[in-house]
Amino acid sequence: MTRIDERKPDQLRPVTMDIDYLIHPEGSVLITVGQTKVICTATIEERVPGFLRGQGKGWITAEYSMLPRATNSRNMRESSRGKVGGRTMEIQRLIGRALRAVVDLEKLGERTLWIDCDVIQADGGTRTASITGAFVAMTMAIGKLELAAFPVTDFLAATSVGISHEHGAILDLNYAEDSTAEVDMNLVMTGAGQFVELQGTGEEATFSRAQLNELLDLGEAGISELIAIQKEVLGTLASRIGEEVSSEL
Amino acid sequence: MTRIDERKPDQLRPVTMDIDYLIHPEGSVLITVGQTKVICTATIEERVPGFLRGQGKGWITAEYSMLPRATNSRNMRESSRGKVGGRTMEIQRLIGRALRAVVDLEKLGERTLWIDCDVIQADGGTRTASITGAFVAMTMAIGKLELAAFPVTDFLAATSVGISHEHGAILDLNYAEDSTAEVDMNLVMTGAGQFVELQGTGEEATFSRAQLNELLDLGEAGISELIAIQKEVLGTLASRIGEEVSSEL
Amino acid sequence: MTRIDERKPDQLRPVTMDIDYLIHPEGSVLITVGQTKVICTATIEERVPGFLRGQGKGWITAEYSMLPRATNSRNMRESSRGKVGGRTMEIQRLIGRALRAVVDLEKLGERTLWIDCDVIQADGGTRTASITGAFVAMTMAIGKLELAAFPVTDFLAATSVGISHEHGAILDLNYAEDSTAEVDMNLVMTGAGQFVELQGTGEEATFSRAQLNELLDLGEAGISELIAIQKEVLGTLASRIGEEVSSEL
Amino acid sequence: MTRIDERKPDQLRPVTMDIDYLIHPEGSVLITVGQTKVICTATIEERVPGFLRGQGKGWITAEYSMLPRATNSRNMRESSRGKVGGRTMEIQRLIGRALRAVVDLEKLGERTLWIDCDVIQADGGTRTASITGAFVAMTMAIGKLELAAFPVTDFLAATSVGISHEHGAILDLNYAEDSTAEVDMNLVMTGAGQFVELQGTGEEATFSRAQLNELLDLGEAGISELIAIQKEVLGTLASRIGEEVSSEL
Amino acid sequence: MTRIDERKPDQLRPVTMDIDYLIHPEGSVLITVGQTKVICTATIEERVPGFLRGQGKGWITAEYSMLPRATNSRNMRESSRGKVGGRTMEIQRLIGRALRAVVDLEKLGERTLWIDCDVIQADGGTRTASITGAFVAMTMAIGKLELAAFPVTDFLAATSVGISHEHGAILDLNYAEDSTAEVDMNLVMTGAGQFVELQGTGEEATFSRAQLNELLDLGEAGISELIAIQKEVLGTLASRIGEEVSSEL
Amino acid sequence: MTRIDERKPDQLRPVTMDIDYLIHPEGSVLITVGQTKVICTATIEERVPGFLRGQGKGWITAEYSMLPRATNSRNMRESSRGKVGGRTMEIQRLIGRALRAVVDLEKLGERTLWIDCDVIQADGGTRTASITGAFVAMTMAIGKLELAAFPVTDFLAATSVGISHEHGAILDLNYAEDSTAEVDMNLVMTGAGQFVELQGTGEEATFSRAQLNELLDLGEAGISELIAIQKEVLGTLASRIGEEVSSEL
Repeated sequence: MTRIDERKPDQLRPVTMDIDYLIHPEGSVLITVGQTKVICTATIEERVPGFLRGQGKGWITAEYSMLPRATNSRNMRESSRGKVGGRTMEIQRLIGRALRAVVDLEKLGERTLWIDCDVIQADGGTRTASITGAFVAMTMAIGKLELAAFPVTDFLAATSVGISHEHGAILDLNYAEDSTAEVDMNLVMTGAGQFVELQGTGEEATFSRAQLNELLDLGEAGISELIAIQKEVLGTLASRIGEEVSSEL
Repeated sequence: MTRIDERKPDQLRPVTMDIDYLIHPEGSVLITVGQTKVICTATIEERVPGFLRGQGKGWITAEYSMLPRATNSRNMRESSRGKVGGRTMEIQRLIGRALRAVVDLEKLGERTLWIDCDVIQADGGTRTASITGAFVAMTMAIGKLELAAFPVTDFLAATSVGISHEHGAILDLNYAEDSTAEVDMNLVMTGAGQFVELQGTGEEATFSRAQLNELLDLGEAGISELIAIQKEVLGTLASRIGEEVSSEL
Repeated sequence: MTRIDERKPDQLRPVTMDIDYLIHPEGSVLITVGQTKVICTATIEERVPGFLRGQGKGWITAEYSMLPRATNSRNMRESSRGKVGGRTMEIQRLIGRALRAVVDLEKLGERTLWIDCDVIQADGGTRTASITGAFVAMTMAIGKLELAAFPVTDFLAATSVGISHEHGAILDLNYAEDSTAEVDMNLVMTGAGQFVELQGTGEEATFSRAQLNELLDLGEAGISELIAIQKEVLGTLASRIGEEVSSEL
Repeated sequence: MTRIDERKPDQLRPVTMDIDYLIHPEGSVLITVGQTKVICTATIEERVPGFLRGQGKGWITAEYSMLPRATNSRNMRESSRGKVGGRTMEIQRLIGRALRAVVDLEKLGERTLWIDCDVIQADGGTRTASITGAFVAMTMAIGKLELAAFPVTDFLAATSVGISHEHGAILDLNYAEDSTAEVDMNLVMTGAGQFVELQGTGEEATFSRAQLNELLDLGEAGISELIAIQKEVLGTLASRIGEEVSSEL
Repeated sequence: MTRIDERKPDQLRPVTMDIDYLIHPEGSVLITVGQTKVICTATIEERVPGFLRGQGKGWITAEYSMLPRATNSRNMRESSRGKVGGRTMEIQRLIGRALRAVVDLEKLGERTLWIDCDVIQADGGTRTASITGAFVAMTMAIGKLELAAFPVTDFLAATSVGISHEHGAILDLNYAEDSTAEVDMNLVMTGAGQFVELQGTGEEATFSRAQLNELLDLGEAGISELIAIQKEVLGTLASRIGEEVSSEL
Repeated sequence: MTRIDERKPDQLRPVTMDIDYLIHPEGSVLITVGQTKVICTATIEERVPGFLRGQGKGWITAEYSMLPRATNSRNMRESSRGKVGGRTMEIQRLIGRALRAVVDLEKLGERTLWIDCDVIQADGGTRTASITGAFVAMTMAIGKLELAAFPVTDFLAATSVGISHEHGAILDLNYAEDSTAEVDMNLVMTGAGQFVELQGTGEEATFSRAQLNELLDLGEAGISELIAIQKEVLGTLASRIGEEVSSEL
């Protein structure tokens, strides 16, 4: 039995990454994952937050937002509310943390990378699309710096997996699937197949260790496909990723 | 002598309006004016603010925002600052007021149109592009309502004019021109050539009545061109604009 | 046919400017325009905002507020709401911009003028009364500085004009007139008759070029009268305004 | 030895109360105590806060603010800071509580009195001047209601007393005296000589019971004088104060 | 090699749960896990948030806070900052979500359980101690309701696991261990050994699937021990947990 | 006739002060006064606020908060509201001011003492219990500094007194008494019997000078008892309090 959008349980939605989407940022990409569309940009600032000053290390921080009509009904802007909501904070902390796991902050030097992920259209998986796109925007921005050693140590991509009542374990949930899934898990992994972040939640439900393993298998496969696309759009820059790891041995 | 982007003083930048740009909103358009790109959406809410309740009239309100990297250097998000800045407020009040001037709010009935203008890329003229695009998104959303009489009474578009040291009076300033202009004026006009809003400012400078007249001539011509494009993209909907005005006579 | 307060269409309300109204500020005036009363003060601070530091230039910034019972029904304080509203921001940005147009910021030197306009009683035209009064308070404060060249380059005053259903084009609208006018325009002009700012708005209505010209004629005449009063209250200080303009030729 | 402004230790500054100072509020007074000037207004709202609804009782609440240049150096507006400070909150709570002590809230009926005290010019004693003036504005507003029984049960006024190094116990401290006093006490009392509120503070100092008694004697005498002025300005309304107290026996 | 506090890698810190710690709340417990101390309270409110009204279902929401000196250096209060930080929001969302997974919200009926977790002293693991304690406070509060069916479907406890450079996989990290761990994972599980939430993060590091499995083994064992303690302190209430699950079959 | 909790009018509730209650702060105490429980901590920061920098003097500042369920019904957290309420501000200003009256800030040197009073359980008198406990926490923290002269000049404690309809003047009101008292007074006094702060309020009532004297007598006696307990728990540190006062003579 196929899913509502005709996909097989282990099938990603169509993914595109449109690089240099904007003229101003040092790195930018419009990532689309099915109907989900996110503009990811990377900005280089030549200084670090106070807690890092003078240590010779860089920093990566992320912000995430949705346009009011990215969703089916209009969301009030967080600027109008006067505060950033809990969900937004969770997501932007996740994006920053994930990217920092594949960047050697000392090689980056005393500068900050600001990552902005703005969801233009949402259909599930906006946080994982943001991470996958942000990795590309970030790598492009870093590629414009003249650095002795390339600080990006590995590829990084993210996807969601979940357990649906009808289809069991499925990969890359769209909004309709996500809102009815019993278990929802976000996975962030590297090109080497290591975990960076794994967040699984029973939605007023629970899951067993066997189900967990099934979800992890699905996710690993999906992330490999995403990284293959990243390699393609990054072109020659892709070959610099991880280059310093080997030379250090 | 031509302008930095090779235009003549009375020449608009290339303009496109990409309608139904997003899947969720009742009306949406991506308007580009040169390098300036704004996503305009219109949302219909079936109720009105408290001050209008029970009067049988509708309301139109607008919000405006820029992505952090819409501009050359990154702007802090207003949601992170915890408040909407003065410039943003001025612009969103202007957009709402301008649109209300060409909509018969009684024919609209007790509903609110939420207009969102999100600047994806900025190169001058974002507020006037927002108005021109918002008119299209709004008209498309209204077209989906089943109303006895069409509430949009006339076309509406906006542009900027200004006085530059080198070129004198010029039409549709890009960012480089805008930031060095001595006088800056935004014009909002209808299809019938009436003024809706006119805001002229000497930037640490002043201007004479003769200069004002020269600016108004330029602006009127530019707005006619913009309205011609609106007519084209609105297709059959364009013919409903103002239809009720005549039948009321 | 005369207006509700017996005025002719081209007649200002009675205007008084009570200088040195408060003991603490460097410059202060209580301006009354009919029943509208505004306390305008000017404060000199011996430093400039960050974006101007080290450039040898000064700055002028304005804040505007209304007492809760300046109006017929009580307005909640913006301090209690926790934020400054859009209308207030628009007005304070306008006041600051207008004053900067007639001050040579380099002659002012690296200092900031804080202009505060507090509306004690409102009956229409509070923003234009604020500008007219603020010019006087500012000039008095600058007069206390020992400067080689006087930085005020010209007089500056403001008034409103509008189109009423009953009287056509009228000057200096009171609250009752303002709230029913079809078109409302604020004009800020110099002693030399140049425009500094011109903001015309159709209130859910539009206006033609001919009507615009009629409004500008009315406004110019009204502003001349206001500047005559400013000259009188400023006494000998009035003669220093613009003195450096000629010597530079 | 006389005080800096030539007063004797037990002498109030000159006091005036200018009633009906503004046209819009139900009650208004400009009170001056020496160089301290406060506009006090009273607004009647025909409903009560949620916690009182349906109990047949009224409420009195107060707000207090200073113009930025009421003081010698400019204070940032609380609306710009985005929050009301601790000192302001303390004062407005005090004003409301004090007024409620001399109003029979059941006779007032289900309505709220909003008291606004806006300090135009400050020279010490702004909170006590606010209470003394607010009593007058409130009584005038209540006088405009058509009530079976007059709800104001007694007069109410306030003053400050303190201990100075040079003069010992003194009455009605101006700013210079207040900022150097070792002990500072605010007294709110009724026409019958009862205490409503008494707040004494050693300013990084302490005081004995004997000193306390001396301060209370001074304060009582000062408050009698203030109430005499209130009686005069309230005219025939003064005779209604407390009228229902006797008839209830 | 033993850990800094002499524990074995798979050893929990000493745990106590002091029930009815406060007199006012419907349920309260002081949980201590080593030096970490959290006061957990449960409040019953007889209504639900707007989005649930009229559906016959209840809701559970949580708030989390630290005293300023719960930690080694003083943290500024979030009330003084004027906003709740991202970390706090993440934790309180986690606590609420976890508890909802073991409560049948329909059996709870239209009421809200407010869970408050206030960290009195912090030494690592405050979020997991909060969940473990909150489950007890919540169950006690629910025990006071007279409900036909007991809505708590299973036990729920949480702990942390991590990978340290020196000791490899370890259970229940204290602050010193947590701040140097390469991988940090929080686990929330039920009495039946099902996962409710699993959040693993490489701290500027990554982890393999084998390491993940090792961590899950450790965590499962620790959570069993915590649930044994919960059973003991809950006494007869413990026997009602899950009772309705069986009767429904 | 005895009070609801069997006390005589002049009797304090049972008082305990549990010192070194927490491991992290420089000074900490859990004070209980009947059912009222407050955690008081003192933190030493080696710098002073901007207004004191470079003057060789220290500063003491206090923050006060209640857990949401310290009271009978749950209070919304001030961090969730986004602002600190008026009552909280009043109390924390009072605590700081009172402590500064018995500390020689010059002897303290250029450092700040942060006092945190967190009410775990409330049953009336939380602000006075906070002051009495804060004095102990502060003295313990100061005792850890190596200072030439001990800066604490005298003991300091606080209690409440009031007038109840049934019992007349009473000492140390619990919540039930406090909420029905006609007059409520907080007293802060030193070991030498001097007043530091005295705040008396008629709660929609007034009081005479004779009643004031009766209240002061009760309060003085209660404060002596509290100071006796402080002496006991402070042990040898108690003997250093005021030591420098005599040597200076």
